[in-house]
Amino acid sequence: MNLLPLLATAGTSHDSDAVPAVLLALAFVTVCAKLAGELFLRLGQPSVLGELLVGIAAGNATLFGGPDLTALASGDTFTVLAELGAVLLLFHVGLESTPREMISVGGRAALVAVVGVVTPMLLGFGVGELLRPRESWMLHAFLGAMLAATSVGITARVLKDADALRKPFARIILGAAVIDDVLGLVVLAVVSGIIRAASLGSEVSAASLAGIVAKAVVFLVGALLFGSLLSPRVFRSALALHSRGVVLALSLGFCFLLSYLALLAGLAPIVGAFAAGLVLEDVHFEDHVKRGEPPLHESLEPLIALLVPVFFIRMGMMVDLRSFTSASVLGFATLLTAAAIVGKLACSLAAPAGTSPLTVGLGMMPRGEVGLIFAGIGAKLVFDGRPVVDSGTYAAAVFMVVATTMLTPPLLAWSIKRS
Amino acid sequence: MNLLPLLATAGTSHDSDAVPAVLLALAFVTVCAKLAGELFLRLGQPSVLGELLVGIAAGNATLFGGPDLTALASGDTFTVLAELGAVLLLFHVGLESTPREMISVGGRAALVAVVGVVTPMLLGFGVGELLRPRESWMLHAFLGAMLAATSVGITARVLKDADALRKPFARIILGAAVIDDVLGLVVLAVVSGIIRAASLGSEVSAASLAGIVAKAVVFLVGALLFGSLLSPRVFRSALALHSRGVVLALSLGFCFLLSYLALLAGLAPIVGAFAAGLVLEDVHFEDHVKRGEPPLHESLEPLIALLVPVFFIRMGMMVDLRSFTSASVLGFATLLTAAAIVGKLACSLAAPAGTSPLTVGLGMMPRGEVGLIFAGIGAKLVFDGRPVVDSGTYAAAVFMVVATTMLTPPLLAWSIKRS
Repeated sequence: MNLLPLLATAGTSHDSDAVPAVLLALAFVTVCAKLAGELFLRLGQPSVLGELLVGIAAGNATLFGGPDLTALASGDTFTVLAELGAVLLLFHVGLESTPREMISVGGRAALVAVVGVVTPMLLGFGVGELLRPRESWMLHAFLGAMLAATSVGITARVLKDADALRKPFARIILGAAVIDDVLGLVVLAVVSGIIRAASLGSEVSAASLAGIVAKAVVFLVGALLFGSLLSPRVFRSALALHSRGVVLALSLGFCFLLSYLALLAGLAPIVGAFAAGLVLEDVHFEDHVKRGEPPLHESLEPLIALLVPVFFIRMGMMVDLRSFTSASVLGFATLLTAAAIVGKLACSLAAPAGTSPLTVGLGMMPRGEVGLIFAGIGAKLVFDGRPVVDSGTYAAAVFMVVATTMLTPPLLAWSIKRS
Repeated sequence: MNLLPLLATAGTSHDSDAVPAVLLALAFVTVCAKLAGELFLRLGQPSVLGELLVGIAAGNATLFGGPDLTALASGDTFTVLAELGAVLLLFHVGLESTPREMISVGGRAALVAVVGVVTPMLLGFGVGELLRPRESWMLHAFLGAMLAATSVGITARVLKDADALRKPFARIILGAAVIDDVLGLVVLAVVSGIIRAASLGSEVSAASLAGIVAKAVVFLVGALLFGSLLSPRVFRSALALHSRGVVLALSLGFCFLLSYLALLAGLAPIVGAFAAGLVLEDVHFEDHVKRGEPPLHESLEPLIALLVPVFFIRMGMMVDLRSFTSASVLGFATLLTAAAIVGKLACSLAAPAGTSPLTVGLGMMPRGEVGLIFAGIGAKLVFDGRPVVDSGTYAAAVFMVVATTMLTPPLLAWSIKRS
């Protein structure tokens, strides 16, 4: 008789079948991400590009006779680990700034963000009118919405690798990218709401649209205001405990809580994590560093080293190279990508004096996971009996996301070095 | 129209519904584990006891009118995070010893381990004969097998918190506990194999039993031998890269790989993680520390701070307090617990001179997650048309696991301080 199935159960040490796959995936991710990142650094490129390419190679391994890993990449546990990586990265990035510093660039960042949402939306709408003239204006608006959101993760990582997070242009870009994330999600919700209402033969109410916008604003203002007022007191009491690791535990708890609250407010968790990082300041923990414990941003590094590569490798794995074999898809993809790039480079026009306009424009360029989510939502959204985003549009959207995401690290790194 | 479901999808920033629950759970775990641990430290108790109690309170929150969190605790993502916590803890514990040190205590640890498997098996068998005389001897043997394995996680944590990992008795206990984990899994596989074969009317082959044992031995010997020979070379080449974080990345990769290979060999992943930790030594990374990077065991601390409490809180959450309302279950539970405790205290008789026998016996006492897995496997195993472990036996087994797990930290800490 065969005891192996039983042993396999006993061996997992728990009742989850996901454990072996995750262990193997993490072994692969930690080693390959480091080696690929190192290789790209030696080539003068940002290491995140190496991680994305490892992800694309892993996700398309079947093309080279390798195993099919797409089920792993889209599985719950790998997704959650990747999301935790994104949350910790944005928390770390937020720690580098203070709310005061962000507010001092806030007006200009908001201007950059609005340009970076409106221009790509108009251009995307135009591409739709040009190449898919027979389809409804609402589908063209959806195409535009897909181009609106900036993926702050890629840009944050390049700025961090270039040690440029405290530069004025970095604050403008990060502030604008976060505002873009918010605006993008609101635009997506509004456009999708209109399409859904139209396909049901009704109209979307102004009240529910206002509700979406209000929730997002309440979350952000509330998080920054209450966080700035309360966190120094909470952390001062906690430090009175004199317990090793209390700063890390409370900071992580605060980061996860705000990420969760951002979700409740209809925003991406990374927006909450960024807000948590903004609110916390090293000055709250001076006593703790004096006691010989590492400062918070140093304690976060091992967590980032484990989880952030999961996020970028997974992003690469979501790319299906076989989508790019059709000429019409390639043409559509090229035009959509051009619209996406030109649309965000327009942000350069709103860059303040003293910063490199090109750097600001390039920093706003990557769409990353946000563009992929938008495309995914469009694929599930039905209008006139067909999906709003059909398979050709989906492939073009993926191309646009990949191209803007892959082009940003080398171009942005080059532009930072130049200026 | 209602836009909330759409926004919720957009907000998760990915296609996984698990993200919000995990973010909220991690916020709760990191903060509550730290506060409860600190409270117990002030009461002179190990902090792990506080984490277990927080878990029990959370898992039974419905009894006090709170939410039902059992689905979260048994969900894939939370389980994987907990398992990663256990893997990292055992890796960290393994780092504190070298293979040479383990081999120097190996003979004595093996003796302690054998006593710690044989005595509880006999006592468990006796409890079965006494209280369930009408059932088959095979079911009594299963009861005995449930008492065999030591949960090295709890003991390792208490030893670590007491800063006693490098003491001779700690090596004896950890060595014996790891051997117990291996012996326990083998015993479980053998007993279950016999029961399955009997319920099919056939007999289990000696060859397949020998195969189980051989795989486990090959894994352990292979991991320690090849690891000890190869790891210094691999790490020396990697350090030539002069890349920040390369030691942490490669070490984590090695740890996850061996944990996965342990699973393939039919063992628990924590056994592989422990072997990985044993093989790696700080001396391989001296150059890296000279360069100003933190030593490996320090880099692991933030990872442990995030993930290990997930493991212990989840272990507490798996306990259902409502099982303990029946008098017959309580009687059975009391006797089984007594057998479990006396069976492992018998290890004291095998403790070498110069170590406190009581400390060695107490260190072998906790059953933790291994006992819960065994009970779970028994509940799924059918003999004569009934489950091998019925609901009463299951509740008694859970009580035994909880009692041995909860009693160990305070008693072991007290015994270490005394000796």
